[in-house]
Amino acid sequence: MKADDPIRQLVVLLSRLPGIGERTATRLAFFILGTGADYATALGDALSHIHQRVQTCERCGNYGATQICKICEDPERDSHILCVVARVPDLVAIETSGTFRGRYHVLHKLLAPLDGVGPEDLPLDALVARVRADSIQEVIIATPLNVEGESTALYAAEVLEPLGVKVSRIASGVPHGGELEFTDQITLGRALAGRRML
Amino acid sequence: MKADDPIRQLVVLLSRLPGIGERTATRLAFFILGTGADYATALGDALSHIHQRVQTCERCGNYGATQICKICEDPERDSHILCVVARVPDLVAIETSGTFRGRYHVLHKLLAPLDGVGPEDLPLDALVARVRADSIQEVIIATPLNVEGESTALYAAEVLEPLGVKVSRIASGVPHGGELEFTDQITLGRALAGRRML
Repeated sequence: MKADDPIRQLVVLLSRLPGIGERTATRLAFFILGTGADYATALGDALSHIHQRVQTCERCGNYGATQICKICEDPERDSHILCVVARVPDLVAIETSGTFRGRYHVLHKLLAPLDGVGPEDLPLDALVARVRADSIQEVIIATPLNVEGESTALYAAEVLEPLGVKVSRIASGVPHGGELEFTDQITLGRALAGRRML
Repeated sequence: MKADDPIRQLVVLLSRLPGIGERTATRLAFFILGTGADYATALGDALSHIHQRVQTCERCGNYGATQICKICEDPERDSHILCVVARVPDLVAIETSGTFRGRYHVLHKLLAPLDGVGPEDLPLDALVARVRADSIQEVIIATPLNVEGESTALYAAEVLEPLGVKVSRIASGVPHGGELEFTDQITLGRALAGRRML
């Protein structure tokens, strides 16, 4: 197939998706061709307009259909506690767990000096402004437990310190159902260090 | 997320793709949202127009940019030998192997009584007409080696029999690099039955 081949073009575009290699992309393209045109058109339309149809909440950075997202507009949420996450899927995961009733702040990026994301690139000004304006009492930093998430958490805590707000970090330890035998050393060390009295 | 949520709609459409469950579809949707709108638009456009841009060859059923595909139009291909395949990806696989220089005939379906595909639904009239019109000397039936492919092969051979054309079936046996120890019994039986003198 030549480069100007529409099937080839579709395969190239599909294989830019995470976890989709050229073989899978080819299989998907042939599936789409073998299915009615209605499906291809519907998926094409959903994709073409997704960035128009989905707005980023001006207040917290969550995705939604409006300028201010449903969580920010929900009067039943505790407006004095903020949970800082790296990405919207992390917010969705916490929401699905049903264990948090405050509001969120989505950074959309983490400190990653090797990828050119320095402290000045983190959108922490907006977080600081929000903590001040909404008289937030606690900021829970729920960035990932990896190098980038940890360094972002430390930096954010430093930036928030002068405001006098409580800053906490989600716990790190052995996950639910986890076998100690198969838990890595860093996690075990954290689980011990973070032990709680019974 | 509600059903009218554009992200949810995209996830539902993506999860209709083979091998893509709801979790993967969600991950893909967030990847697409996190990437520039250009990519989503390009992929959306490629999908929306794929059925328009790709034509099914009137002669052999292959996909292409024109009414008659490149293989059918290539004067260097042997026009007296036809390879019958179930689907275009099978044709692509044979082309990639570089071991066949004749032309193809794509059925686009196989006998599958349980799915309501009976003998009368197989597009064998077109195959018969082509064998007659192009004075084909051999038809190689390269449908899959499963129940549907085998029964389609037998039925096609029956239909072609009165035409006096040679009808062959691709070999079944232990694949290249295959260990006999781990080869299933049916394949081993076929490999023995189909043995060739050295």
